[in-house]
Amino acid sequence: MIEQLGETGLIERIVKRFHIDRQTVTAGAGEDDCAVIDIAKAKSGHKYLVVTTDTVQESTHFPKGITPFQIGWTAVAVNLSDIAAMGAHPFAFTIAMGIPAHTATSFMDKVVEGIEKCASAYNTAVVGGDITRSKELILTGTCLGFADNPVRRAGAGVGDLVCVTGSLGNAALGMKLIEEEIQVQKRVEAAAKKALFQPVPRIQEGIILADSGLVTSMIDISDGLALSLAELAKSSGVGFEIYEDKVPVLSEEIRSAGDFVLSMHGFDPRELAFYYGGDYELLFTADAQVIEKEELWEMLRREVKMSVIGKVVPAEEGIYFCTKIREEKKKEKMEIKGYRHF
Amino acid sequence: MIEQLGETGLIERIVKRFHIDRQTVTAGAGEDDCAVIDIAKAKSGHKYLVVTTDTVQESTHFPKGITPFQIGWTAVAVNLSDIAAMGAHPFAFTIAMGIPAHTATSFMDKVVEGIEKCASAYNTAVVGGDITRSKELILTGTCLGFADNPVRRAGAGVGDLVCVTGSLGNAALGMKLIEEEIQVQKRVEAAAKKALFQPVPRIQEGIILADSGLVTSMIDISDGLALSLAELAKSSGVGFEIYEDKVPVLSEEIRSAGDFVLSMHGFDPRELAFYYGGDYELLFTADAQVIEKEELWEMLRREVKMSVIGKVVPAEEGIYFCTKIREEKKKEKMEIKGYRHF
Repeated sequence: MIEQLGETGLIERIVKRFHIDRQTVTAGAGEDDCAVIDIAKAKSGHKYLVVTTDTVQESTHFPKGITPFQIGWTAVAVNLSDIAAMGAHPFAFTIAMGIPAHTATSFMDKVVEGIEKCASAYNTAVVGGDITRSKELILTGTCLGFADNPVRRAGAGVGDLVCVTGSLGNAALGMKLIEEEIQVQKRVEAAAKKALFQPVPRIQEGIILADSGLVTSMIDISDGLALSLAELAKSSGVGFEIYEDKVPVLSEEIRSAGDFVLSMHGFDPRELAFYYGGDYELLFTADAQVIEKEELWEMLRREVKMSVIGKVVPAEEGIYFCTKIREEKKKEKMEIKGYRHF
Repeated sequence: MIEQLGETGLIERIVKRFHIDRQTVTAGAGEDDCAVIDIAKAKSGHKYLVVTTDTVQESTHFPKGITPFQIGWTAVAVNLSDIAAMGAHPFAFTIAMGIPAHTATSFMDKVVEGIEKCASAYNTAVVGGDITRSKELILTGTCLGFADNPVRRAGAGVGDLVCVTGSLGNAALGMKLIEEEIQVQKRVEAAAKKALFQPVPRIQEGIILADSGLVTSMIDISDGLALSLAELAKSSGVGFEIYEDKVPVLSEEIRSAGDFVLSMHGFDPRELAFYYGGDYELLFTADAQVIEKEELWEMLRREVKMSVIGKVVPAEEGIYFCTKIREEKKKEKMEIKGYRHF
């Protein structure tokens, strides 16, 4: 148990797992009162520093079956996802850990491994942290990034395309399988749980989109598509028409198992995609002229797995689904609901 | 209760309390996925970015009688103290708050007021944060600063002077008064509790010391003088001779009440100063030639309330107290103990 290591022993054990580039980070985790980063070397000429902080904790964020490695991974990934949503380059990360006294050392080793693996997978150095004794495991990460043209939530204009990376509803399906103890095909279960337990921050996609110069607004989808659309609408002062059948619901891997498997269990994939969180895909708007710039558009579609799911409309029209039945458009107002802490 | 506000209502209520300079912070708390800071405008030419993160939480850090304002203040102050220990200029702060669902809105308003007041008192903008529902109140702050010559823990050389800002043991006295329910003079009680409940980060002092160019190592004293000396000794590879009677024990205000008041209650002021935390003064070493640079030395002593408490000795001599009885030096090894989370 970590109690036996003592605070100094625990810190020493943890910090040696974090690898830093000494040219850039002249003081790393556990080495001094603060981490020290050479700005010129880290920022590579970028104009803006971006900062985000996000907490994951036992009682709220750890679904049954998540491994300690995945807990650590998630603590980093949720922060990186916010960096991705600005189209920024992450470079440094700090982790404050509240740890119950009875926690096994091997458990914390794996949490720390997950933190380091996720950070280093996205060129991010874990430069500092803090440990306290707490009632439940609680991890607060703070991530720093650089950007020249951080993509804001405000900026969508009427007529812009509404797009989303990857597919939605996978993490929600994973949660449903756990909550309702449902048996499905092993590979569906594995894919859904991986989406839930080990989210992938869309760092590379965010950077490519920001660099394209055609993205007008962006946000990550942490609490379901509906809430993220509502946030974007509010910040940009617009409404959205969403083509319901264009929303990429569930990954190919899961869909290939057959919709009947899911419908058999009463899952409405649309519900999962719209009103449940955990996918960490990017929702963004793009200047419609992007389509005319054929080469750029092709590059974006190739490099960033993405779908056009709607268009920006005036604020007074609100946010609605649009389905075409024969040649007739049917509109349906979107409910604004999803995961909320309070 | 904050539950009634809902997550969006709570965030909106909180973020409007945080004042930012829009020239520098182009996206503040609650405005986007990340805060966005214009590096050139914020850093004013400094070479290094420094980062620190620190958590305060109900079950460990909130002594009986602390007000919600002081809880918020402390969450910022403990982070600023780490920035001070590098001799850096703080400029941005993020706060992740785990809040129990039954918390009163007025309570959180005061916590937020404390956060804003402490940050703005030291020219620091609260630029971002996160809220989650948790079992106990837990606040994790992350502070960013800039520095040209961050003062490290490593750097003390044999022969350097050992110095400390302010006075030690005040917060520990406050804690003792609470724990042992002791009545002392009102002004002593008020001063001791203020030291405990609302620590003062030595930002200005840290900057002046770093800028003097004569400080060779520095650390803040969060868990008692003994542990901080041990950390500095380890990082610098040195030992310390501490002149016991030169250590500034208790503030003038408290001392003026008369030592007999304290000794009456069985307090050993030396114990309080050496082995208990919460003072957040700076411990540093300075090149002994500083004394010969009379003007600089006078300036430092005037601008930074400080005491010379010892000198740096070779590592193999360890850390010891030195008292002079008549002309005879008496040495006594220092115990390495103080507050530890695990």
